Amino acid sequence: MTRYQEVAALLRQRIEHGVYRVGDRLPSIRALCREHAISISTAQEAYRRLEDAMLVEARARSGYFVLPRQAPAQLPAVTRPAQRPLEVSQWDQVLELVGMNRDHGVLMLGRGIPDLDAATLKPLQRLLAGLYRHGDALSASYDSLIGSLKLRQQIVRLATTSGCLLHPDDVLITTGCQEALAIALRTLTSPGDVVAVDSPSFYGTMQILKANGLKAMEIPTDPRDGISLEALELALEQWPVRAIQVTPTCNNPLGYTMPEVKKRALVRLAQRFDVAIVEDDIYGDLSFVTPRPRTLKSYDDDGRVLLCSGFSKTLMPGLRVGWLAPGRYRDQALHMKYVSTGASATLPQLAVAEFAAKGHYERHVREMVHRYQRHRDILLGWVGQHFPQGTRVSYPQGGFLLWLELPEAIDCIRLNERLAEVGVRIAPGSLFSASGKYRHCLRLNYAAALTPETAVAVRQVGEVAEAMLREEAELVG
Amino acid sequence: MTRYQEVAALLRQRIEHGVYRVGDRLPSIRALCREHAISISTAQEAYRRLEDAMLVEARARSGYFVLPRQAPAQLPAVTRPAQRPLEVSQWDQVLELVGMNRDHGVLMLGRGIPDLDAATLKPLQRLLAGLYRHGDALSASYDSLIGSLKLRQQIVRLATTSGCLLHPDDVLITTGCQEALAIALRTLTSPGDVVAVDSPSFYGTMQILKANGLKAMEIPTDPRDGISLEALELALEQWPVRAIQVTPTCNNPLGYTMPEVKKRALVRLAQRFDVAIVEDDIYGDLSFVTPRPRTLKSYDDDGRVLLCSGFSKTLMPGLRVGWLAPGRYRDQALHMKYVSTGASATLPQLAVAEFAAKGHYERHVREMVHRYQRHRDILLGWVGQHFPQGTRVSYPQGGFLLWLELPEAIDCIRLNERLAEVGVRIAPGSLFSASGKYRHCLRLNYAAALTPETAVAVRQVGEVAEAMLREEAELVG
Repeated sequence: MTRYQEVAALLRQRIEHGVYRVGDRLPSIRALCREHAISISTAQEAYRRLEDAMLVEARARSGYFVLPRQAPAQLPAVTRPAQRPLEVSQWDQVLELVGMNRDHGVLMLGRGIPDLDAATLKPLQRLLAGLYRHGDALSASYDSLIGSLKLRQQIVRLATTSGCLLHPDDVLITTGCQEALAIALRTLTSPGDVVAVDSPSFYGTMQILKANGLKAMEIPTDPRDGISLEALELALEQWPVRAIQVTPTCNNPLGYTMPEVKKRALVRLAQRFDVAIVEDDIYGDLSFVTPRPRTLKSYDDDGRVLLCSGFSKTLMPGLRVGWLAPGRYRDQALHMKYVSTGASATLPQLAVAEFAAKGHYERHVREMVHRYQRHRDILLGWVGQHFPQGTRVSYPQGGFLLWLELPEAIDCIRLNERLAEVGVRIAPGSLFSASGKYRHCLRLNYAAALTPETAVAVRQVGEVAEAMLREEAELVG
Repeated sequence: MTRYQEVAALLRQRIEHGVYRVGDRLPSIRALCREHAISISTAQEAYRRLEDAMLVEARARSGYFVLPRQAPAQLPAVTRPAQRPLEVSQWDQVLELVGMNRDHGVLMLGRGIPDLDAATLKPLQRLLAGLYRHGDALSASYDSLIGSLKLRQQIVRLATTSGCLLHPDDVLITTGCQEALAIALRTLTSPGDVVAVDSPSFYGTMQILKANGLKAMEIPTDPRDGISLEALELALEQWPVRAIQVTPTCNNPLGYTMPEVKKRALVRLAQRFDVAIVEDDIYGDLSFVTPRPRTLKSYDDDGRVLLCSGFSKTLMPGLRVGWLAPGRYRDQALHMKYVSTGASATLPQLAVAEFAAKGHYERHVREMVHRYQRHRDILLGWVGQHFPQGTRVSYPQGGFLLWLELPEAIDCIRLNERLAEVGVRIAPGSLFSASGKYRHCLRLNYAAALTPETAVAVRQVGEVAEAMLREEAELVG
């Protein structure tokens, strides 16, 4: 047993024997170091183990706390998608969500939009304004295809916190993370190929599969720790899988973070079957665990992980600044980037680079993590109060998205239609499946979830669901 | 004979009989109206005929002038590309041009970058700065997928000058014209399909064909009036062509504008063979003819023309604001747009919309057209002075790109390598062909071609070419 495992085991024992009780604050990292004469990284590793086991939770700027033995509500069941590659449908439903003109009367509870009102974001606005006002002719022109060197240097610096040692030449700036995902998948596949995905899975990626004539092999996924490696292995044995696409950190929509041992095992499995991995890490920096969890990419020693990320969830979606670390597929990815949109806009890149170089990025993300963690707890409370009995709900480890599994009788596309009448919209679960599974599930956003209007809207979602359940029962009765 | 044909015939006679001599200014539109008791549009149509015949030339804010019977230098020959569909290569050469980090020591004579120093562009910078400084949370977020309504309304207004009657819902905002072209071609084709293209043809489009596994059927093209309809018809009969891709107005790289009768005939031909047309009009508003020539799209009565354009050549490339009018392919194009980059950045769209709504766009474009026309004549003079005997050169009707056909013995990739030693770069002709034809051709940019440094650089290109020709002769001798 290594040192950190020993310390973790000791802490676990103390929790189980009631030395530390639910909600108690555990010793600080520093205190743990003194107590056991261990290094900071060993103490962090010990707490990481306990987090993975869902025994403790890190709270930003406060320390580690003992979690209830049961998560506040029951977690959604392990998913059971189809056992074969499927063509992707659901575009009409996705278009309804993303194609909508912004209407000030409608409360969008379902979209993946961060809180944009934080004071810590102001320096970015100032930087953008200054650059657009005084930018020279060169920055109004095309940048080099790979993107601004200043920004790539900052990305390399930030990525070290996720365990990645990249070189600026390993990073390619894209027009949002969506373009990074599209380039990565197009680089790896040809029409007709099979891609293994966690399930439920981000609808934007599913629609990339559809647009490229790819088939989705949806793998059973555990809302606590992610894609089932056993089921994935079986799929790799049975089907000609060309790529694995997962969101292992602050998963969209389930909110879990895959434990590090499992991440390492996933990379090894991909190596064994010689398959590439497309890792979506767009919410990764919004992890409630500090320092943030490692990426799959950090375990990648032969360049098979294509890491996709960007600043749409941490800063502003409207900037459209994303990035791709394409590993050994750099040349093909660069070609795909060129034909897709040419070089990305220069000035937003320079503004983000400057924002990060001055330390504003870390400060803003800390603030957001703190805020989102509070919002999650508040939203969980509301859901507990207002939703039908039998509702299961995710327990997000980061980000700002909540996944709800309602009683099977409730069709969330119909729920959404009925909510439209009262000016509220959710994201129906079927968007997150190739073939429209998860119809009784839905996704909510708690990025800006604290106004009385939001409270009313969430209650309305619960009440309409409750009403639909009653009507269903009457029909059956 | 219609009224405008009669007036055109009369003017032609007077030119041929020397009533008006080379360089003379012809009667103004207003004078012509009074003289013949015709309407303004009839007078314009008459001059348009004479322009198509290359007998007269419109100069912005000055009127119509008699052209020399021979263009100043001999035009390049009608091109003779391969007579079969080809896979596209040349990526390495394109990457060298577009992937280069900007280096202040190097004079880029080859790239498609407009003049960004004009005072008429300042209001756009002010608008951008103001929006980024004070923009609300909504505009920092995702816009609707189709793009800002304000901008689409302005595009619809501007497109009327090219004879297009669009509705804002017919227009989809993209991340630069490159994304519009990529979406249009991906919407129409599957890997292995054949696309007919004018030749030489923009390398960005050729690389889209490559990235999507498409084959290019390069059609012979006349540097005076564009793609040969006879050769195109033959190709449509012989090969399973899925789409026709052309740049008929202010062509890149040849600079011609296809006469309107020929544009109409091209649309009819596409209808007869039931093929879609991808029209690249990115340089169209920079036509030296006022009002600007009509688009193919303006003759499209069954939605088969996908019109691609944007503001990278008229305003700033770094904005990455383009647009696509996808005709009957709107739904598929919207899906492709979503998976490619999601919604495009909002604030640049709002800034361009405001810039256009206030009349700044027309003012800026008028200024640029005036400037580019002068630059063209100056650059043509320099080329005449410094380039080897036998050099043929295009006579651009708009835009800011010149195409040179050097004596066959000169390899422009080698020429470019030798120019790198003196800090000058051109765009070698082989980029503009699927299979590396046009090796003895090159493209120059005259957007900002008036500094003494540029004069020296152009002379160097000519002198190095001359030297290569001598060396070649000595080797043979």
